[in-house]
Amino acid sequence: MSTTKYTKIGIVGAGSMGSMMCQLFAEAGPEVSVFDVKCGNVDTTVGMAEKNPKTKGKVKGYKDYEQFVMSLPSPGHRLLVFSITHGDPTDQVLEALRPHLAKGDIILDGGNEWYENTERRQAQLKREQNVDHIGMGVSGGYQSARHGPSISPGGDSAALKRVMPLLEKVSAKDSQGNPCVAPIGPGGSGHYVKMIHNGIEQGMMGAVAEAWGLLRFNLGCELDEISEIFEQWSNTPELKRTFLIDIGVDICQKRDPSLGKTGASDNEEHVLSTVADKVVQDADGTEGTGTWTVAEAARIHISSPTIAASHFFRLASADRTARLKIGESLNLPPPPITPRTTLGKDEKSQFVEDIRKAVYAACLASFTQGFQLIARQSQKEEWGVSLSTCLKIWRAGCIISSDGLLDVFQPVVADFDSKPGNVNGSAVGNEMAKPKDASATIPAHPHLTSELAAAMPSLRRVMLWALERDAHVPTLAASLEWIKYVGAPVLPTMFMEAELDWFGAHKFDRWDSDAGRFGGQVKKGSEHFEWSPA
Amino acid sequence: MSTTKYTKIGIVGAGSMGSMMCQLFAEAGPEVSVFDVKCGNVDTTVGMAEKNPKTKGKVKGYKDYEQFVMSLPSPGHRLLVFSITHGDPTDQVLEALRPHLAKGDIILDGGNEWYENTERRQAQLKREQNVDHIGMGVSGGYQSARHGPSISPGGDSAALKRVMPLLEKVSAKDSQGNPCVAPIGPGGSGHYVKMIHNGIEQGMMGAVAEAWGLLRFNLGCELDEISEIFEQWSNTPELKRTFLIDIGVDICQKRDPSLGKTGASDNEEHVLSTVADKVVQDADGTEGTGTWTVAEAARIHISSPTIAASHFFRLASADRTARLKIGESLNLPPPPITPRTTLGKDEKSQFVEDIRKAVYAACLASFTQGFQLIARQSQKEEWGVSLSTCLKIWRAGCIISSDGLLDVFQPVVADFDSKPGNVNGSAVGNEMAKPKDASATIPAHPHLTSELAAAMPSLRRVMLWALERDAHVPTLAASLEWIKYVGAPVLPTMFMEAELDWFGAHKFDRWDSDAGRFGGQVKKGSEHFEWSPA
Repeated sequence: MSTTKYTKIGIVGAGSMGSMMCQLFAEAGPEVSVFDVKCGNVDTTVGMAEKNPKTKGKVKGYKDYEQFVMSLPSPGHRLLVFSITHGDPTDQVLEALRPHLAKGDIILDGGNEWYENTERRQAQLKREQNVDHIGMGVSGGYQSARHGPSISPGGDSAALKRVMPLLEKVSAKDSQGNPCVAPIGPGGSGHYVKMIHNGIEQGMMGAVAEAWGLLRFNLGCELDEISEIFEQWSNTPELKRTFLIDIGVDICQKRDPSLGKTGASDNEEHVLSTVADKVVQDADGTEGTGTWTVAEAARIHISSPTIAASHFFRLASADRTARLKIGESLNLPPPPITPRTTLGKDEKSQFVEDIRKAVYAACLASFTQGFQLIARQSQKEEWGVSLSTCLKIWRAGCIISSDGLLDVFQPVVADFDSKPGNVNGSAVGNEMAKPKDASATIPAHPHLTSELAAAMPSLRRVMLWALERDAHVPTLAASLEWIKYVGAPVLPTMFMEAELDWFGAHKFDRWDSDAGRFGGQVKKGSEHFEWSPA
Repeated sequence: MSTTKYTKIGIVGAGSMGSMMCQLFAEAGPEVSVFDVKCGNVDTTVGMAEKNPKTKGKVKGYKDYEQFVMSLPSPGHRLLVFSITHGDPTDQVLEALRPHLAKGDIILDGGNEWYENTERRQAQLKREQNVDHIGMGVSGGYQSARHGPSISPGGDSAALKRVMPLLEKVSAKDSQGNPCVAPIGPGGSGHYVKMIHNGIEQGMMGAVAEAWGLLRFNLGCELDEISEIFEQWSNTPELKRTFLIDIGVDICQKRDPSLGKTGASDNEEHVLSTVADKVVQDADGTEGTGTWTVAEAARIHISSPTIAASHFFRLASADRTARLKIGESLNLPPPPITPRTTLGKDEKSQFVEDIRKAVYAACLASFTQGFQLIARQSQKEEWGVSLSTCLKIWRAGCIISSDGLLDVFQPVVADFDSKPGNVNGSAVGNEMAKPKDASATIPAHPHLTSELAAAMPSLRRVMLWALERDAHVPTLAASLEWIKYVGAPVLPTMFMEAELDWFGAHKFDRWDSDAGRFGGQVKKGSEHFEWSPA
């Protein structure tokens, strides 16, 4: 089976992402049958299509599974795109659809999903019905879902081959016109890569929001001024065309004349001034990916403090009721320096430049941690994921897209991919290419380290300035500490190691042994000292 | 069935913990049959018992499961204590033992274990054989296992009742002579509490090791001087009798005359000077609990940056080979201030005092996060765990024991436990006592917040000083940020929230709504703005 021309496809789920995907696919060629348990969603989606000359008459709505599937091509030639919530809701839809599926049909699960759930479904559908289930990361939010998202599909290679032409049509295109989609690998690798994308996104969003806070609350910049600053940043080599900066340009200047007095700001007309500071989708469980990435970093032992710090920051922001209670009780002493400082013009622009580089450093840290996670897990699962492919599909259409940042990583991941054993499956018998060793080569690449080292003094200055003013900088703080320790020749963890040996007989290596001096393998030390005979 | 007098028990596993537990139990009364797959471990353990007049003749070794079980009391009266590695090894031992078990027998699994594994085993053994399996946290390392550990058993309440008299005999005793053991609750609650104990431990160890690093590398203290400083700290109200400080007194002064020149220090005779800086047991998978705690914090949405920061720090320390490679490539620019600064005597002692308070603040943060994790999960699982009971068993015999720190939390957890619905199972119909709300009351308690607020300026000064010198302070940094944001009335996350609404239509609450101003419930906001119409 090679490629298939899909003239009619089915989309399940017409929420904010699904409705946009209906328009996207319908514009790209095929007719679309859309199903949603919520009738209102179906009607809205069809109505939207009717209003667009390019999609008029091409999107039909269904509120019954059987009729929905009957509207699609004959068994074996059906393509079903899911845009539904991960976990149980997806299982429920699958249970309802399964009686109608036949050998050769393909499901593209375009929601976020924990990769082990995807692999469970793939195995069951393949075994019982010879139906292919592709875990398809779709990034970029509803905006990109409308105009072309970044897509990371993973699953059976023959099935991937069949759907690639259609996916290439609907995906985002980079500045050279290349589609931001490629087969990632077998099993749950596509959803895994999307999960890590979202983890990197959390780290980057923490850095950018903290920078915004420094500019707004500590340098006292007006929102329009921050908009201009972000626009300048997006034209510098380091942060060139960084999506999260670019939309910041927009967000900081957007006005809504209908807005009344909010009481929260002197910028009455700015929409941003009306937005409360609660990020709830981790706490309420609707967004799984950030949560999963932090848990995964712990599980597979990749030090990912940038991503974790930002995650726990936004998580704490969610419960504003608790924050207000705690804050009242805490009643922290004021910082030594009053929050708003008037700096001279030159000083100020120098400091804004430092903030820019601090954001750059933290974003590099977030990407590095994300690439390490993919590298280690791909090697563990023998997925053979190419980091260059990930980078390529992140060039446009997704939240972490950034020409500046990705330009830094391009040679880093190309070198990683080119090393024997790193991409092409099993590293058995090749000691140098074993998983744990290979992921650690990423932060050692000179193209990355020279950038980190150059930005580090700015990050340190920003941290000092922020600490004097009690500004909120958890992501920047974690990133600076990571840069310092990830390449440190001597760490105070020697004291920790001694304590563990004191009470747990965990053993250690001696500095004057090869394993102590040069590091050796990551394994239990050979020495124990009876610090306090038991 | 009430309590049982166990005159002979079985212990499976004679590693560093198990061999000590054999001596401990044998000294407390019962004879002990010990089994280990490694014959050497059995012989060593029996030999150890023979040398001690109190245990001579009381410990017998077995290398065959059947003979081992045959040596124990009649079916239904057998008590088997496990001291083996979590996961597969425990399942294998259980499979081998099951044919020999009978209704009424009790297993005390004294290893660290992920609580869901414990609950799986409990259900299977109960269902198939009416055997009780108790997940028993044993804290304190091999040292405490010898002289009396802190014990957190969880499982069937009747089975717990039967074993409590023996456990009370062998457990550590607090300064009033109370045993540091109590039934924690049903299911996996005992192992869960032990897991969180170890998470708190990781946070505390990070703070103490970073403080040690500041004293040693940045203030230039000699090891004997640090030993004296730690001794003073342990006599202050805040850090009174803190185990991890107390063993630091010992560690910093311990000399081994047999040590040759190590090349790593000018303190040739100090054992600590020979200890390499790699903490490997997370990376090599032998220690699960720290890993699990970080993953769990993400999973159940408790912001736990102190624990996570310390975890990722020690994790990164493990791969020294990688660190050296990365460090060579990074070649960081030097800090603005040279590392070793000679301070005047008064300045120095003032700064040592700041470091002490910084450690105190970070340890309070670590405990708070840990208590919140237990509170939320206990309420989710309806375990009814009393935080006061946890605090009570942590008073002695365990790694996180600290009279100073626990004195702060005693009224905090007592108040928590006394609120309706917080401890006694279901909170159905009691909106105020629902899990998510209740765990957030812990950091709002005035007895805790007044301590955090008082220590905060010291923590900030230490952070500023450390950043100027590129000292390693990831745990302290994360703790300071947590103190600042956990009670902050306004966070820069409003910008993050706007970005999420821009690309994901995630919605927000307006500042001028009740949900914006006062916080409201943790749920999706009601507003969406089309920042850039799709």
